[in-house]
Amino acid sequence: MDLSSFITSLTTSFIIFVILMILFAYLSTKPGNAVVYYPNRILKGLDPWDGSSSRTRNPFAWVREAFSSSEQDVISMSGVDSAVYFVFLSTVFGILLLSGIFLVPILVPLAYTEKNPNVKDSDGKNAFEVLDKLSMAHLKEQSNRLWVSVIACYWVSLVAYIMLWKAYKHVSDIRAAALKLTEVKPEQYAVLVRDIPSSSEGYSRKEQVDEYFKTIYPETFYKSLVVTENKEVNKIYDELEDCKKKLKRAEIIYADSKKVNPEGVEPTHKTGFLGLVGKKVTSIKYYIDKIEELTPKLEAAQKLTVTEKQQGAAVVFFTSRVTAAAAGQSAHARMIDTWTIMDAPEPRQLLWTNLPKTYYERVIRQNVVYFIVFLTICFYMIPIGIISAFTTLPNLRKLLPFLKPILDQDAIRTVLGAYLPQLALIIFLALLPKFLMFLSKAEGIPSESHAERATSGKYFYFSVFNVFIGVTIGGTLFDSLKDIEKHPNSIVGKLATSLPGNASFFITFVALKFFVGYGLELSRIVPLIIFHLKRKYLCKTEDDIKDAWLPGDLGYPTKIPNDMLILTITLCYSVIAPLILPFGAIYFGLGWLVFRNQVLKVVVPKYESYGKMWPHIHLRILASLLLFQVTMMGYFGVKKFIYTPVIIPLPVLTLLFAFVCNTKFHRFFQSTALEVVACPELKERPDMETVYKSFIPPSLNAEKGPDDEGVV
Amino acid sequence: MDLSSFITSLTTSFIIFVILMILFAYLSTKPGNAVVYYPNRILKGLDPWDGSSSRTRNPFAWVREAFSSSEQDVISMSGVDSAVYFVFLSTVFGILLLSGIFLVPILVPLAYTEKNPNVKDSDGKNAFEVLDKLSMAHLKEQSNRLWVSVIACYWVSLVAYIMLWKAYKHVSDIRAAALKLTEVKPEQYAVLVRDIPSSSEGYSRKEQVDEYFKTIYPETFYKSLVVTENKEVNKIYDELEDCKKKLKRAEIIYADSKKVNPEGVEPTHKTGFLGLVGKKVTSIKYYIDKIEELTPKLEAAQKLTVTEKQQGAAVVFFTSRVTAAAAGQSAHARMIDTWTIMDAPEPRQLLWTNLPKTYYERVIRQNVVYFIVFLTICFYMIPIGIISAFTTLPNLRKLLPFLKPILDQDAIRTVLGAYLPQLALIIFLALLPKFLMFLSKAEGIPSESHAERATSGKYFYFSVFNVFIGVTIGGTLFDSLKDIEKHPNSIVGKLATSLPGNASFFITFVALKFFVGYGLELSRIVPLIIFHLKRKYLCKTEDDIKDAWLPGDLGYPTKIPNDMLILTITLCYSVIAPLILPFGAIYFGLGWLVFRNQVLKVVVPKYESYGKMWPHIHLRILASLLLFQVTMMGYFGVKKFIYTPVIIPLPVLTLLFAFVCNTKFHRFFQSTALEVVACPELKERPDMETVYKSFIPPSLNAEKGPDDEGVV
Repeated sequence: MDLSSFITSLTTSFIIFVILMILFAYLSTKPGNAVVYYPNRILKGLDPWDGSSSRTRNPFAWVREAFSSSEQDVISMSGVDSAVYFVFLSTVFGILLLSGIFLVPILVPLAYTEKNPNVKDSDGKNAFEVLDKLSMAHLKEQSNRLWVSVIACYWVSLVAYIMLWKAYKHVSDIRAAALKLTEVKPEQYAVLVRDIPSSSEGYSRKEQVDEYFKTIYPETFYKSLVVTENKEVNKIYDELEDCKKKLKRAEIIYADSKKVNPEGVEPTHKTGFLGLVGKKVTSIKYYIDKIEELTPKLEAAQKLTVTEKQQGAAVVFFTSRVTAAAAGQSAHARMIDTWTIMDAPEPRQLLWTNLPKTYYERVIRQNVVYFIVFLTICFYMIPIGIISAFTTLPNLRKLLPFLKPILDQDAIRTVLGAYLPQLALIIFLALLPKFLMFLSKAEGIPSESHAERATSGKYFYFSVFNVFIGVTIGGTLFDSLKDIEKHPNSIVGKLATSLPGNASFFITFVALKFFVGYGLELSRIVPLIIFHLKRKYLCKTEDDIKDAWLPGDLGYPTKIPNDMLILTITLCYSVIAPLILPFGAIYFGLGWLVFRNQVLKVVVPKYESYGKMWPHIHLRILASLLLFQVTMMGYFGVKKFIYTPVIIPLPVLTLLFAFVCNTKFHRFFQSTALEVVACPELKERPDMETVYKSFIPPSLNAEKGPDDEGVV
Repeated sequence: MDLSSFITSLTTSFIIFVILMILFAYLSTKPGNAVVYYPNRILKGLDPWDGSSSRTRNPFAWVREAFSSSEQDVISMSGVDSAVYFVFLSTVFGILLLSGIFLVPILVPLAYTEKNPNVKDSDGKNAFEVLDKLSMAHLKEQSNRLWVSVIACYWVSLVAYIMLWKAYKHVSDIRAAALKLTEVKPEQYAVLVRDIPSSSEGYSRKEQVDEYFKTIYPETFYKSLVVTENKEVNKIYDELEDCKKKLKRAEIIYADSKKVNPEGVEPTHKTGFLGLVGKKVTSIKYYIDKIEELTPKLEAAQKLTVTEKQQGAAVVFFTSRVTAAAAGQSAHARMIDTWTIMDAPEPRQLLWTNLPKTYYERVIRQNVVYFIVFLTICFYMIPIGIISAFTTLPNLRKLLPFLKPILDQDAIRTVLGAYLPQLALIIFLALLPKFLMFLSKAEGIPSESHAERATSGKYFYFSVFNVFIGVTIGGTLFDSLKDIEKHPNSIVGKLATSLPGNASFFITFVALKFFVGYGLELSRIVPLIIFHLKRKYLCKTEDDIKDAWLPGDLGYPTKIPNDMLILTITLCYSVIAPLILPFGAIYFGLGWLVFRNQVLKVVVPKYESYGKMWPHIHLRILASLLLFQVTMMGYFGVKKFIYTPVIIPLPVLTLLFAFVCNTKFHRFFQSTALEVVACPELKERPDMETVYKSFIPPSLNAEKGPDDEGVV
């Protein structure tokens, strides 16, 4: 990539960013858009603009607000998980900034002033690219200046260790503070029990669970909630809810029609497939009849489910947080495959259908899933290649003759010709996170947050392996697969030789990511358009409108791996082409700013896991660091630097650091430390009935409780 | 080894065994020897011969008694650990017996009837040794009969898996039953707390510990006992106890002298080194004075220790078994290096000086110890070789000229000439278990039983590596070290080729072990002689006599590795030379019988760990099995059997089996399952003061308790 196209690319990205910023500044002040730009504040019952009128408002006030907000504000608006995400952003920003301060002013002039006769020869005509002159590629083989690069590797690693250590400590503090709060959180009084052995005759599961826990915790056991097979009851419940929603909508349509015509037009619909076929009925009467029919059916199904469809899992409640926390980490049964107990996740993030899966089923499922993920990561190009080969234009015409008239138009042919080959890949990449999420849930994981962490891990491996290593080594990998088979170490050398050429590509890649990505994120153009379209054409009731603007969460399963990919790229190039460091730093710095706004005003988290994501992030940052160190070893080797072994302590140090951090900090993220939840002020028993009811799935009638006849 | 020397060796061992048996039958009926042959019964306050008079007693009654005793008898006489040891013996006996039933009648004729021309050629003159004709060595290369050997390998492995699975389950049951008993065991109400962070100013450690646990367990916390630096107080206490003992002895000597001379002779002694030099004093008065002087000194030291010398470890008591068990397995602090909590071991087996060692000190010590052990196992021959080289006769004469007249005598020269070269090795092997025990304790392990397990592990590796692999490969290993460096796999082939030649050596080794070893064990000739000598010349008081006959325990740290060595040898030869199987089976069968007698009547266990030894044993049996399977792979390779890969699933299966067992059973051996200790009948609070006092070291005055002024 030459200098002009590099600058063109950066400029284009920047212009898009400026346009999106202006759009955001304009659109966000319009009161009609408040639900799109401030949904989190609205849902929390706060005034969108915090007092100041929308007119007089400075369009860049959000920057000041983001900077002036404290960590406590983030936690209160969006929970601990969001605060942990900011710790991640600021830590990585710090690492890249501190590295950049040392590396850019020293390594860049050092590379530029090197006289490299070799390169001049081969590039004789075109001179040496300016960008490449600023990188380590310009250093001579065996040059003494490589010593400075070695020191730079140590500096980057050292900065990373210190920042990560501080961050882990800080996240641990945040987590502890959140868990310590005296406010009653139902999940702190409950544990999840799985692998309940099949009960002896005459006993129901519930009696069995109650007796078991009453024996062990005679004083603090409160109640148990046995997990049931809810498929049937859920189906009826969903149908009923759907009818209620449709009834409401029909009533509004009827009322609206009365405004035009005092008589009104009773809305009607057909009962068949998608309302296209079947008998025509009057909607309001039809739905009222249906609700009347479904309500007793639901009640009967609920009763049947609660008594007859008890499964081998339960949520057990204690009257003390300390007991619940201790129970979550103690072995209750002698065999590890019965009475498996763990801390209960929040009720809203429980994956009910996964709970009754038995220990061995989980182990097998997990291994099968890992194997599938491994295949997906390594060989996903094969089926896509095959599909691409079949979906050429001539093939399409042959297979789908009815498309012929369309395909024969020139304009369509050009567009399809350009995109058809990558169509399978594009669809695959769009569906990949969903597919990985499906796989993670299929492992038998009990909670949403855990499944998201598992997805994020899988996506991380996919993106690092395919984008970074894939782009860098490019097509050469498959050609030289035989070489690698013979000398497996040569993959490091291969990676190292292909690195410098791609530096400017990755710089523009990072810049594109933050300019366009953050611009779109902040301006919310897509959700805004969708909201206005929906409100105009689809929404009838207030609930419909709310559904239309209801924001999602930050989307950790894709967001964190994407950030990690940028971090991996920046770290790996940090010493080779230090110019990437400011771009990386801007990515995370600007990200911090943009997401501070989003977290405070827009996104609504789906769950709260009290920072359980952190050990996962921490480990993957270290994996990136390790990849950087190993790559550098290879690169020094390529430069025929005979002191390359001085780098060897670095990967060892990283592994040691990972081990020490894991030993010292990790356990608190797996289970709750008792000193944290033991709170002398919290002497009073919370309202246990509320705690208990918060765990009952809505389809089982949360109002009444599924087993009031049960033993208390 | 030819047939005649093989039979001679067996016969000699058997004759020694018979003589020892006759001696035992005769000596054990003499009432004066009862304390040597029935100390455990006597200490338990039972009649040595269980009613029947010693005269009329059948000399082989012990065999009947051993057979008729139940597991419950063993547990009540000698604890769970002994019962677990019998599970080990009977399991291994079962494995070897079931293997033998299939292997001996099939493999031996199969080998004998093979026509092997190759071997006849090379051994032309001397014919083929009868013993070797019965082993797999007699099978031709690539012979189809090797398929039977393959099946035999699978049979042995299968039998081992089934027996081990049953045994683990059984041991788990025994452990659960013992822990479930309602009888109050102090250690079940206590936990061990280490790594207490340095307390804030103005607080004593005790106040800090009390407050910490009172916050977390407001209802069940009882009291804490902070570990103190007892060196000084122990010294004074030991001196005082010594004086008391000597005073008693002096009084008895004085009383005895009065029988001869009515005046009596006041015993005297010199106060200097070993009573050889210094002022002569009257013993009784001297000791009375000394006791009077020491008693207040001890009290002052006790007070000082309890208040001023508190360390960063404590024993914490709870009023509930369940809380103590749950506390032992829950994380209390956020960081893993503070407030480390584990189940308390029995008071008698606590290693007090190890308790205050900090987390990081323990980690470092452990790694240093592992490294030293590794060096010891691999390179112990080097220092011993050097010492042997220096301690030759001529050297001795030069270095220690005063020994010249002795060394010049012919007889002594012959004996020394024979034993001097191995002297260093003999001394080393005798001291090795003590050295390994010292190392294990230096790791910072908190309890005696844990240290013994660690020692046993280290000794196992030493014995398998050096005796089995050492003898088998012999000197050839060092010569061919370069070969092995080039092809690390060749070590398996090497092992396999050297195996058959050593089969008869190992058969006689096993026979010697059980005939002579068990004969000596049962007849207790050595302790008997020592006891009678001591009683005659040294013992004055009743306590002295009791000390003289007081038996030790089974000595697991050396016993189990020795048994494991025999098992390893037998398993590895089981298919190659199946004749070893009956001998191995007899070793464990006879061992069961002999030790049944010893456990019921002689030995007194030092501690009770409720079978924590079992996972350790289980894992090492599987290691032996793995070694057997890998060796067989090598041996089939040597036989140029092209279907050798059919053995590959076996090691994989063993690893999988080890993993499954570890997952399923192991956790219950690390910490107590709550369902086991939760006992509805155990509603009453035990006498907590007794529980508490049982943990106070005697030097700190257990009668009064070290801190009655402390908060309750």
